[in-house]
Amino acid sequence: MEPRDKEVEASKRKITYKVDLPFFIIKLNSPETLNCMTSHDYIYLCTLLQMAEENKEVYFTVLQSSGRFFSSGADFRFISKHKDFLDSKESKFRDAHEDPAKVSELNKIWLDAFVSRNLFVTDAFINHSKILIACMNGPVVGLTAALCLLCDLVYSMNDKVYFQCPFAKLGLVCEGGTSVTLPLKLGYNLSFEKLMFSENIEFNDLKDRVIVKNYQMQDTEKFNEIVLKDLKNKISKVYLPSCLAMKKILNNNINSDLERANSREVNVALPYWVRGEPVRRFQALLLGKRNSRL
Amino acid sequence: MEPRDKEVEASKRKITYKVDLPFFIIKLNSPETLNCMTSHDYIYLCTLLQMAEENKEVYFTVLQSSGRFFSSGADFRFISKHKDFLDSKESKFRDAHEDPAKVSELNKIWLDAFVSRNLFVTDAFINHSKILIACMNGPVVGLTAALCLLCDLVYSMNDKVYFQCPFAKLGLVCEGGTSVTLPLKLGYNLSFEKLMFSENIEFNDLKDRVIVKNYQMQDTEKFNEIVLKDLKNKISKVYLPSCLAMKKILNNNINSDLERANSREVNVALPYWVRGEPVRRFQALLLGKRNSRL
Amino acid sequence: MEPRDKEVEASKRKITYKVDLPFFIIKLNSPETLNCMTSHDYIYLCTLLQMAEENKEVYFTVLQSSGRFFSSGADFRFISKHKDFLDSKESKFRDAHEDPAKVSELNKIWLDAFVSRNLFVTDAFINHSKILIACMNGPVVGLTAALCLLCDLVYSMNDKVYFQCPFAKLGLVCEGGTSVTLPLKLGYNLSFEKLMFSENIEFNDLKDRVIVKNYQMQDTEKFNEIVLKDLKNKISKVYLPSCLAMKKILNNNINSDLERANSREVNVALPYWVRGEPVRRFQALLLGKRNSRL
Amino acid sequence: MEPRDKEVEASKRKITYKVDLPFFIIKLNSPETLNCMTSHDYIYLCTLLQMAEENKEVYFTVLQSSGRFFSSGADFRFISKHKDFLDSKESKFRDAHEDPAKVSELNKIWLDAFVSRNLFVTDAFINHSKILIACMNGPVVGLTAALCLLCDLVYSMNDKVYFQCPFAKLGLVCEGGTSVTLPLKLGYNLSFEKLMFSENIEFNDLKDRVIVKNYQMQDTEKFNEIVLKDLKNKISKVYLPSCLAMKKILNNNINSDLERANSREVNVALPYWVRGEPVRRFQALLLGKRNSRL
Amino acid sequence: MEPRDKEVEASKRKITYKVDLPFFIIKLNSPETLNCMTSHDYIYLCTLLQMAEENKEVYFTVLQSSGRFFSSGADFRFISKHKDFLDSKESKFRDAHEDPAKVSELNKIWLDAFVSRNLFVTDAFINHSKILIACMNGPVVGLTAALCLLCDLVYSMNDKVYFQCPFAKLGLVCEGGTSVTLPLKLGYNLSFEKLMFSENIEFNDLKDRVIVKNYQMQDTEKFNEIVLKDLKNKISKVYLPSCLAMKKILNNNINSDLERANSREVNVALPYWVRGEPVRRFQALLLGKRNSRL
Amino acid sequence: MEPRDKEVEASKRKITYKVDLPFFIIKLNSPETLNCMTSHDYIYLCTLLQMAEENKEVYFTVLQSSGRFFSSGADFRFISKHKDFLDSKESKFRDAHEDPAKVSELNKIWLDAFVSRNLFVTDAFINHSKILIACMNGPVVGLTAALCLLCDLVYSMNDKVYFQCPFAKLGLVCEGGTSVTLPLKLGYNLSFEKLMFSENIEFNDLKDRVIVKNYQMQDTEKFNEIVLKDLKNKISKVYLPSCLAMKKILNNNINSDLERANSREVNVALPYWVRGEPVRRFQALLLGKRNSRL
Repeated sequence: MEPRDKEVEASKRKITYKVDLPFFIIKLNSPETLNCMTSHDYIYLCTLLQMAEENKEVYFTVLQSSGRFFSSGADFRFISKHKDFLDSKESKFRDAHEDPAKVSELNKIWLDAFVSRNLFVTDAFINHSKILIACMNGPVVGLTAALCLLCDLVYSMNDKVYFQCPFAKLGLVCEGGTSVTLPLKLGYNLSFEKLMFSENIEFNDLKDRVIVKNYQMQDTEKFNEIVLKDLKNKISKVYLPSCLAMKKILNNNINSDLERANSREVNVALPYWVRGEPVRRFQALLLGKRNSRL
Repeated sequence: MEPRDKEVEASKRKITYKVDLPFFIIKLNSPETLNCMTSHDYIYLCTLLQMAEENKEVYFTVLQSSGRFFSSGADFRFISKHKDFLDSKESKFRDAHEDPAKVSELNKIWLDAFVSRNLFVTDAFINHSKILIACMNGPVVGLTAALCLLCDLVYSMNDKVYFQCPFAKLGLVCEGGTSVTLPLKLGYNLSFEKLMFSENIEFNDLKDRVIVKNYQMQDTEKFNEIVLKDLKNKISKVYLPSCLAMKKILNNNINSDLERANSREVNVALPYWVRGEPVRRFQALLLGKRNSRL
Repeated sequence: MEPRDKEVEASKRKITYKVDLPFFIIKLNSPETLNCMTSHDYIYLCTLLQMAEENKEVYFTVLQSSGRFFSSGADFRFISKHKDFLDSKESKFRDAHEDPAKVSELNKIWLDAFVSRNLFVTDAFINHSKILIACMNGPVVGLTAALCLLCDLVYSMNDKVYFQCPFAKLGLVCEGGTSVTLPLKLGYNLSFEKLMFSENIEFNDLKDRVIVKNYQMQDTEKFNEIVLKDLKNKISKVYLPSCLAMKKILNNNINSDLERANSREVNVALPYWVRGEPVRRFQALLLGKRNSRL
Repeated sequence: MEPRDKEVEASKRKITYKVDLPFFIIKLNSPETLNCMTSHDYIYLCTLLQMAEENKEVYFTVLQSSGRFFSSGADFRFISKHKDFLDSKESKFRDAHEDPAKVSELNKIWLDAFVSRNLFVTDAFINHSKILIACMNGPVVGLTAALCLLCDLVYSMNDKVYFQCPFAKLGLVCEGGTSVTLPLKLGYNLSFEKLMFSENIEFNDLKDRVIVKNYQMQDTEKFNEIVLKDLKNKISKVYLPSCLAMKKILNNNINSDLERANSREVNVALPYWVRGEPVRRFQALLLGKRNSRL
Repeated sequence: MEPRDKEVEASKRKITYKVDLPFFIIKLNSPETLNCMTSHDYIYLCTLLQMAEENKEVYFTVLQSSGRFFSSGADFRFISKHKDFLDSKESKFRDAHEDPAKVSELNKIWLDAFVSRNLFVTDAFINHSKILIACMNGPVVGLTAALCLLCDLVYSMNDKVYFQCPFAKLGLVCEGGTSVTLPLKLGYNLSFEKLMFSENIEFNDLKDRVIVKNYQMQDTEKFNEIVLKDLKNKISKVYLPSCLAMKKILNNNINSDLERANSREVNVALPYWVRGEPVRRFQALLLGKRNSRL
Repeated sequence: MEPRDKEVEASKRKITYKVDLPFFIIKLNSPETLNCMTSHDYIYLCTLLQMAEENKEVYFTVLQSSGRFFSSGADFRFISKHKDFLDSKESKFRDAHEDPAKVSELNKIWLDAFVSRNLFVTDAFINHSKILIACMNGPVVGLTAALCLLCDLVYSMNDKVYFQCPFAKLGLVCEGGTSVTLPLKLGYNLSFEKLMFSENIEFNDLKDRVIVKNYQMQDTEKFNEIVLKDLKNKISKVYLPSCLAMKKILNNNINSDLERANSREVNVALPYWVRGEPVRRFQALLLGKRNSRL
């Protein structure tokens, strides 16, 4: 269990939480990595969501971050750990007709490394019963961007915030329910433009559609503080059980679609991972853009 | 039948109608109460809708109002009529396990006072086959706001118009199909912000999404007149049966969702009424804000 | 509160319950009326369902009955209470164009007497989270038949059990979700035959489709006893939380459809009540078949 | 086969195509008719779509046009071909009860002239698996407007572009899936305003909702060129199979609704054609507005 | 109009009708052809359905037939009329890439000959608001079988009745909504067995699922008579408006699915017709089995 | 890669395949284990399905087995491999509030061991485009039973065949889409009886609903042979592309529901695994029933 323990310990350091009833506040606390997230980080994040879920006095789960980025998405350095295997001739995809056993192994690898994590994380956000609030201090990328699109309320620190869903650029497909949330929130045509060409979704695209308030601030810590203060003020007049009951009724309209999308997205993506395109593209990114990344 | 007759007579005075083919014009005519509406008023409003429905020469059902507000929503003074009972110890909610007969009585009271009215009124608007037009001379609140969100065309007199859906503040949940119409028309994230914190939905939120034309006027009677004149002009070139056929096809996309939402909304709200939170909050509003209301 | 109290007291006598964990057993205990049910009885029945719902140690809600019939359906003698009004010329339906106030009053009467009750009772069964078990000792009629069709498990005492959905005969439409449950469980064509011509749904139609076990017994009390004993035996090997989790997943397939059907059924039925056909037919039944009923 | 051959030859001249991998470029090339389209033109357009569909190296199907209009919609001069018949007393609609054989003939005529064409063309756009791009050099009308609303990406040459859906004015109903695409992309209330009164959908209504980029140019040929150059640039970084996989997942959300709408729209429209209102209105347009059209 | 007139006249002879309120009785009256039906016959049949639809005193539309077969399905002799063209080299399918104009012509031919007819006929049955009753005197094949599966009530003369859906054998796909009605009524696995291998659906498969009563008779005329007599007896006790209201609620569950299926079925089938497989198989059947057919 | 390689090699021995166009025949070939299946076996099975999927000349994927059982389900001996960990105090579930890191680790373990495998296997069957045929030589249990319920055609060797879905007995929930397939194929009430009490689904329950033909044989090898011979005979007359096109249209009705169910089933089951009930029950089964199992 040693290696696993270490990874969980790392997640614990990178993602902290605090209970300030009725708020459960989760903070991405790894500004030095631009809050990029490993598989273990995502699963740890969801375990915290489960804690918020089970605490009956929690009505709002607030996601905060730190530093320049809200999150730079999945940490694709995990690929370098598998480098030896992925570089070996054994790992090379072959036509299943030639060697089904080899393809079966690759299926198993990517089921564990990609499918199970994505399905779980996305479902945890889809079915979270507390009001989900994202405090966007800066840009957000990939799977974390998808999770922010599953949040009920999104506030931005300033108009430099953007979302990045670079699935086409990475040889992947829609993740984290974005095949439903993007057309639902941005509209179909704008979603196609952003998804097909892996273009940034800029603040102006997000305003009123995803981001409901722009705080026009520069300091992340102060932004996190003021949002929380605002929230405490806003809820002073409302009956909190009504909020959860309304979320349940509202989400009933889309949760079935989101669950189906989640299943379809991961199952469609799997053969892309097995055939190797995303790995090639992640490696190229790591090599060529190590310094200029993001 | 005496008391009932009186209430119906009151509704007849407060809500008038006129047939100006192909328009059926219903007018809220109680500016001194800000057009707040009793259960009987809502049911009478729907009976007028049924008249419009059954008249084959009617193609458009137009809702007008008078005075400062389009409608200040449900008249919660009805609660004071039940004051004796609601204040008595008999009315206090008890755990059903302690006394199911008492809870059964409370269920019956609120089924009649709330569930049946809301379900009926909302359904009458969902399934109305004529083009529904709301002429917003001023703010609209609560269930009446929900009904305006079910209208096909909404025009505003000026940019002081706003919608208020204060369900969370009153210890209630979404009413009148708002769990579907708000996300459909305003978008999900904006709807959450407005619903969770009982915030006003301002003109700028409504523009192009709900309100399709702003007349920038100040006089309600002239506004009502000019909208009708405009409508007569606009329809001069169109084949009216096409309008109803198109509404039928368009609404087919959402009517099933609206009907399900209607059923869910009233059934989820019932235990809130039975447990007493909305009554407590209405009474507090009546007491504390009698003069400064809205 | 006097008259209401009496009616609730009557319901308490007619419908009893007992908690025998993990079973919550509700018993229709009015064999002398063939267990016909007033509005108050139906609401009291649902209040008991709410008790079962809220008790975390309850996993199964069991409906038993007594005497010859499981239930002969809604007690239409309530109409005779309203006889004076319904016979008066005031109550006669007039074209809404002639007198919308009169129609509005009739709408209100039937909203309270029919719509709110049916919507509530049906929803309580649709959304009950415990396993619903009906022990059919004999025939079941009307709304109670509809509720048995919403049960998850139905056992019959013998092959004399039948269901009766005489909506067409009474000038009504599908009630209690039967517009969904009948085609779902009996198939479309058989449902049309039974509904269009108000034919009994006989044991052979129900076998394996609705009734999953026939006990071939003659004594109701012994039947109730043996079913419960069987159930205790069957659950000895299973993990009870799995049962509720599976019901939740299974019902997710149909609950939205059932909720929409519930709303549509009551709203479509309302004008039938207002126009008076069901009352005329109930009165004819009461007159002509007082002795030979059912 | 002679007459048919000629019509197909005409279509071949009016609609050209070019394969510039991964683009399949279809160009409406009849500026002198404002690119109005006959039944044969629409069917030929779809046959080109099928070519794009079957070519595995094609990832994007681009629609370009020429001249002032993108397309002025269906060429209603075909009606004058049928003038003799349509003017004859045989063609006049009679109550089916009087002469079902005559109505049967009219059904057959309009099934061939309208239903089969519309259903086929709309379905070809709904189920096209390549990314559909419309380069709007100018206004677009009727069925062609509907097809552009089915495109995934729409670029405009300048802000003079508008969409016209004059179904109500022509005595018709929604065509080409507009009963789904308009509310989906423009929102419900705006769609009602445009559809009920046959109003132009102006650039400002379309911006960000349908049109994702405005090139602010004046020359159609240069606009077509620069859009293609832009596209080539944009796709340089993306993995093209990801684009098609994402379109498949995204469209899965709405294709069932679109297919149902397509069927409903044509079947609802048929009796309007049979009863003659659209023909009367087209003829009036041809007569009265021959010079001032559009 | 000459040739068309003749075809309609033929339909009038082959399909007769009679109004016997509240029944509208349509009779297939061409026993010498086993009631096989041309395109014109199907359209004429639907025109009669429209008559029944528009007659407010009609509550039941009854389909009767004559002779040995209820209907042997589509009359594929129409193909021989097109023999010259279909045999000519011009008609041969070519790869669209080689000659899109030729494919466009073939598309047009089959849109008129197949798509428009099937879509229309199927929709007329899906959306017919009166109770549809089929009196099966004998086997039924193809599109007519599909229409009988869309009927609400099906009675059989004896157990020699069977349904034949030989789509796979003819190089076609599901028609007439069978992709929905067969799994709905027969169950999924049985439908696959019948559809994949073009096996007859025998009386035992249909009993209780499609056929709700078997009259065990041998004479078609007497069977037709006795069914009608039975129906008159059955409806003596029911309120007929309730029947239509219940059908509307019941069908609301499946009509959207049926409409989507209708659109998908015809659009998927079109390229099969264009590529020529069904014609080849019909011609082989005509040649090889001219005497032994069915 | 060593340990993994061995497991894949084992799967290769236990599951064999053969291409006999248009059939792709997969055979469970481990009669000595009653064809119980490890995670690797299930993934290997799906890799074979992918081979069948990609082979354009394959139209039917046939599942055969060997020995007494078709398959005894998931091989729960894998739990003993994790015995040390699962017995250690580190593995014991703790309240997430106490130690989210520990719960996070357990989430990861079961995501890999259960969620990813089940989601993948189930999706492979849901979305397999070839006709899926299961030749049941004997009983089938658990996840393999669920997969057989996803097959299009099921034949049984004799009436001793049964299905076992013992989810409640094992402390689990519906797997492999059974929350959709069981009510769809068996009906709701029968499914509840079988699922709630973990009762065998006997041949009589399956007949005509799941099993479309019973071969009444005793020898597995001969049964496999004769089924294949029958199939070859049956397909001699049909156009094979029609079969795949029809499956695509038929499954379009239910695949979205199945995908959503798949996602929901695995995500609902995960906390059951994490909390340890299934492991405890599997271990009890292994201990207590080692010899008498099944």
